[in-house]
Parts: sequence; C-alpha cells; structure tokens
Amino acid sequence: MNEKLRIGMIGMGCRGREVMKTVLGIDGVSISFICDLYDDRTEAARAEIEKRQGFSPRVTDDWHTMTDREELDAVLVTCSWEPHIEMAVAFMEAGIPVGVEVGGAYSVEDCFLLVRTFERTKTPVMLLENCCYGRYELMVKNMVDLGLFGEIVHCEGGYRHDLRREITFGRENRHYRLRNYLARCCENYPTHELGPISQILHINRGNRMVSLVSMASKAKGLHDYIGRTDDADRSLLNRDFAQGDVVTTIIKCANGETVTLTLDTTLPRAYSRQFTVQGTRGMYSEENNSIYLDRDHTEDMHFSWKKQWNNAEKYRERYEHPIWREFLADGLRGGHGGMDHLVYSDFLRCVREGLPMPIDAYDMASLMCISALSEQSIATGSMPVAIPDFTSGKWISRT
Amino acid sequence: MNEKLRIGMIGMGCRGREVMKTVLGIDGVSISFICDLYDDRTEAARAEIEKRQGFSPRVTDDWHTMTDREELDAVLVTCSWEPHIEMAVAFMEAGIPVGVEVGGAYSVEDCFLLVRTFERTKTPVMLLENCCYGRYELMVKNMVDLGLFGEIVHCEGGYRHDLRREITFGRENRHYRLRNYLARCCENYPTHELGPISQILHINRGNRMVSLVSMASKAKGLHDYIGRTDDADRSLLNRDFAQGDVVTTIIKCANGETVTLTLDTTLPRAYSRQFTVQGTRGMYSEENNSIYLDRDHTEDMHFSWKKQWNNAEKYRERYEHPIWREFLADGLRGGHGGMDHLVYSDFLRCVREGLPMPIDAYDMASLMCISALSEQSIATGSMPVAIPDFTSGKWISRT
Repeated sequence: MNEKLRIGMIGMGCRGREVMKTVLGIDGVSISFICDLYDDRTEAARAEIEKRQGFSPRVTDDWHTMTDREELDAVLVTCSWEPHIEMAVAFMEAGIPVGVEVGGAYSVEDCFLLVRTFERTKTPVMLLENCCYGRYELMVKNMVDLGLFGEIVHCEGGYRHDLRREITFGRENRHYRLRNYLARCCENYPTHELGPISQILHINRGNRMVSLVSMASKAKGLHDYIGRTDDADRSLLNRDFAQGDVVTTIIKCANGETVTLTLDTTLPRAYSRQFTVQGTRGMYSEENNSIYLDRDHTEDMHFSWKKQWNNAEKYRERYEHPIWREFLADGLRGGHGGMDHLVYSDFLRCVREGLPMPIDAYDMASLMCISALSEQSIATGSMPVAIPDFTSGKWISRT
Repeated sequence: MNEKLRIGMIGMGCRGREVMKTVLGIDGVSISFICDLYDDRTEAARAEIEKRQGFSPRVTDDWHTMTDREELDAVLVTCSWEPHIEMAVAFMEAGIPVGVEVGGAYSVEDCFLLVRTFERTKTPVMLLENCCYGRYELMVKNMVDLGLFGEIVHCEGGYRHDLRREITFGRENRHYRLRNYLARCCENYPTHELGPISQILHINRGNRMVSLVSMASKAKGLHDYIGRTDDADRSLLNRDFAQGDVVTTIIKCANGETVTLTLDTTLPRAYSRQFTVQGTRGMYSEENNSIYLDRDHTEDMHFSWKKQWNNAEKYRERYEHPIWREFLADGLRGGHGGMDHLVYSDFLRCVREGLPMPIDAYDMASLMCISALSEQSIATGSMPVAIPDFTSGKWISRT
C-alpha cells in the first residue's frame, strides 16, 4: 500500500479535535470522513482538516453512513463513551478496522459481543489506550521485563484528575461525563491506569483478572464546587449525582497479583495516575516518581522517603524504553506529551501492515468490563464479582 | 496524688525496651514491676530501670501475678499481639488502668469482651496508638478541624514497612510476627494509619465504620528474600507463609466516607504510612508531603504535581497542632520522633487525673476488629463483612 490510509472519525468534540491534530501529523494518512451530532463541531474540524491536508473530508451526522469499506481504510471512534462497543461491532461487521478511544463498558454482554464479533469477522480492533505508551509506564515495563523488580506481586493505579469544571460547566454542557455522573456509580474510567498494568502483568497472555470488589464514597465534591463557582451550572444543585467522589476497586489475578484502582475525579487535587508496581526485588511509585531496588538499597533510604523522590530520573538513561528512545530521537510530537502520537501511529501501522493489534479485542473487553463489574459490585454492597475469561481459556497459552 | 505512679510492664522485648525508655523519661512515674517470658530480657530491663530510677522493679515471667491493685497504679501491655485483649480484660477486672500497645484482634468476640468488661468495671483502658500523636497527622487534623479541607470524603493509609529482615532473621527468632505471618492472612496491623483517620472521621463520635472488604496478594516476598539473604533462616524456605505480601482493605463509614488501608510489609520499599485525607475543598498526601487546597490552587499546580511536593511545610508554621507546638517548645523527647512520649504521657496523665481515655475501649475495639474482619473477608473471597457497632448506638450522640 503506497496510498494514504483513508480515515473516518466519529466524534469531533474535545477529544476528537485533539486526535484529529495528532492524526494529521502522521505520515501516510488522510482524514476523509468525519461525523458528529453537532454541526459547529464538524464544520470547525472540516475547515481545519481541509487547511492541513488540502482537501475536505466528507461530513455526516449519522455514523451508520460510514460503513463502506471501499471508502474507508480505518475508523477512529472518539465520541462519547456509550456507543463505543456498538460502533466497534458495526465497523468490524463492515470489515473496516476500527480504533476506539478509552472508556468503560456498560455491560459484560457488550464485551462478549465485541470479542465474538472479532472472532467471527477477524476485522482488526484496538483500544486506543495512550497511557500504554506513556514514558514512565514504558520505562517501568522495561525494568520489569529485565527482571529488576523480581516477581511482580501488586500494582496500583488511579485516574485522579479534578474534572469538576468539565463536568459542571454552566454554558451549554455537551459533555457525556455529566450525564454519566448523574446516572451511574462505578469505576467509570479504568483503562488509563489498568492498561499499562495489564501489560506488565501479562493479562490475556499467561495471566488474567479473575475477580474484583469496588466501593464508592459519598458524592459531595460536585455540589460543593457548584455552590461556590460562578461559571458552574447552578441548576445541578437540584440534582443528585449518583457517582461517588472516590471509587476504589481491588482486582485479583489468576497468578495471585492484586491491583487497586482509584477513580478520583470530583475533589480538589493535582493530576496523578498513581502508577505503582511492586515486586519481590523492587518497586516504582509515580506519587513521588521513585524507584526502590533491593540491589541499590541503602539503610538511610529505608526511613528517609524524601531522599528517593524523583530518583526514577537517575534510571532513565539506562532504562528508557526503546520506543521512547526512538521517539525522542525522531522528535516528540502529538497530544498528551507524545503518547497520542505513539498509540495512533501504532494502530495505523498495524492497519497498514495487517499486523495483530497490540491492545486487541480480548484486552479491550477485559479492560472495559471493569466499569460494568464495578457498578455491579457497588450496587450489591461491594460483593466480589467474577471477571469473565473473554479468551475462553486461550489466555493460558497466548503469548 | 503527689506520689509517683507505679507502673507494671508486660513484654520487655524490642518494643517493651523502647517504651521503658520513654516512660522513664516522663515525670512522676516509676516502673515497679516487669514481666517477660525470657530471663535475659527481664534482667537487661531490670538493670537499666534500676540504674535510671535508683531502685529495681519486681520481676516475673507470669503476668497473672501483677494484678494486685494495691501494688500497681497502671499496667502497660507491650508484649506479642495475641494476649493483648486477654490481658486488658484481666487488668480491667482487677481495677488496674491498662494501656495496650498496638496490634489487631483475632476475633470480633474478643473486641466485644473488651467493651463489655470496660462498661461493667469502668476501669480505664487505652490503645496506645502513637501515630494518633504524629506530627503531620495532627497538623492535618488541625486543618480539617478548621474546615480547610471542606467535608471529608475519602482517606487512605497504610502500614508500608519492609519487615523482611525482622520476620526472617536467622538466629533465635522470638518475634511474634514470624508465627503470625506463617499462620494468618489479614490486615494484621491496621491501627497506625486507621487511628489518626478514625479521629479525623469522628469514628464512635457521630460516625462509625459499617463494612469492609479485604483482598490479599500472593505471598512471594519472604521466600525470595530468604533465598538470597545470608542471615535469614533458610529453614523457612520449607514453610508456606499464609500472609499475602500486600493486603488491601476498603472500609465504608456511616457518614458515607471510604477509607482504604494497605498492609505492605514483605516487599522492598521505603517506609510510608500513606496518610491521605481528601475533602471537598482540599487534600493532604503523605506520599509527597503535599497539601492541595482549592483556596490556594493555581492552574500550574493542577498538572505539575512535582511543584507541590513537600509544600505541606509551607503550612506548618500556621497550622502546627497545639500539642506539637507545646511539645517542641518543651523539647522533643521519647521514641519514634516524639510520638511515643506524647501517647504515654497522655495515658499516664489521664490515669493520674481520672480522665476519660482519648482512645478508649470503643475505639480500641473498632480499630482492632479490622484484623479479624479482614481475615474473614479474605477467607471468603473478599466478601463484604459488617463491622459491629461496639457502642450499641451510643456513637450517634457521643462527642
């Protein structure tokens, strides 16, 4: 294939516009079809795409018109969370490779539908989890792969991001987060932290997640914020938010590891994905960007936590992941500090070369199902919930 | 009472010797009776006490001989975990005020026995949780009490302390931790973090803990360590450790707050109690000693986590807790950076003045029961477990 890949995009809101810019910065790609429910979004995107690539994409407000495989080489789903799986299934049925932005599933059955459709159609599908390409996530994975942390026993991660303004903004609020926070209580955004952790724990490749429990705190952050914030939508003070401010989830894996996830998006804080990896010989903690290795351990570090803060940088020259070494040499580009460029390039490379997707249908199902299962656990008083084996046993020997 | 308080001590091992030194530094106190199963311990302690206070304490290896209230004004229990409640009950029955070092309970029934005995005998009893007197714990409590964090929604804490050497040490190992790690799997040491959090959440004084779930990782840290450590007991390689390396517990409170606890004592790491308090207007995190307040928030702090590291020190002059202000003015003394002096002084002051204990029988029961309940939850596949109301409803109006 020497011709440019013709890309369709669904969802030209905040995330869609960001992805559009990243994709326009990747060689061998054109955006030939875009979709959004709002005309102002499609027009703004269309104009920018035309300016950047020299011709205008087709425009629609009905994504069902985009399923002609003669017209599109791949579709990117960058819209609200709810239809992600429905769209992925439809494009797989149409034979068009599909990349899907992150979000959680609303039911386990949807996740099985995703997997069964992939198995039947063989159409490539990928969860576009940019954090699997994060710089420190990959450095830590590199160190884990080299055995520096010993056997991995426990990981932690979080989506700890103050979204109060985004959720409650007072002028026209089209954000899908608002309706989700009003209606649902669950770990609604597990994949940023769980994606990289899954790769470190070889989930669906010799390991799998077997059960979880979730618990939610009360929901107080948004009302308190709205009541004292001028540009927040005061009418929301008459509504109850279903989503607890902090949702904690603990996952058990087949090989005995535990993983804790924390969703923490409606209280004041600085951003953190709380990425933590602990093994029998070493650990990493994002909270103070530190690495602790038995090999390099000194007694004074044992009780002098602060001496370790930011010491991960001392390991960077030696253990930077090859993907990032190359990326930095080529020149950092794309959104979210470069992660977006890496994940979209990788998806498009696999589409072009017909390679298996690095975050495939099985991974997508097992990552996305956490939202639906955490909702079940919370709804039943933190009962433990079994996590399905979406691979039907193939995880035992998959590599 | 102008005379010195006559103190008995049970358990003259590592912690007992440390407590002995702290107590000998408190005015108006003499140690008049000591007990340990091992002669070498009692003799070493006896000699040091004689040197410091000018006369020798009585010595026994049978703590039951210490229950004469004419002879002792208070007893301190600083021995292994298992008999803590049995001893507390016996001394309450004997009418001798008793302070008990930290540890978890082995059954909920033991916790009820403790409470019922206190209610019947009215003999003062206190859990000697030094971390309730920790400097940053108290500063944060002070800020919470002043309303700076808004309504508290979520707290986290941990006992994250690499104890591999202590547990597996190869020469004669008398440490109760070894047998407990071989036999039990639970949140075996919850009170260092949960004590201060309970005070912030007003547990047993308008709030209570209502349920929990716990999950344990596999147990890999100790074997890996023993296999490559010269002075570890290699015979332990033939034994299975029941205690998972990391145990995560999530607690729900009556007023809707969640609390997560992490026990993490058999993997390489630097020490942390992971003290974290999140409210609708601000938060504190021990992991990087930072405070984030809506009031002081600037946009660049939102995504520049590192800019916040250690900024809690900027709040210290204004918000240092009065207890610590006075303590520092008087001169820091006693073990564990001064916390030991504060907790033992407070216990002995309340004994002398006949005041209610600051960490009383109800607090002791609700803190200690977490170990027994987490064991139940883990044993049943992380089932949610109800936490008893040890106050029989008095928590609703207690202050």
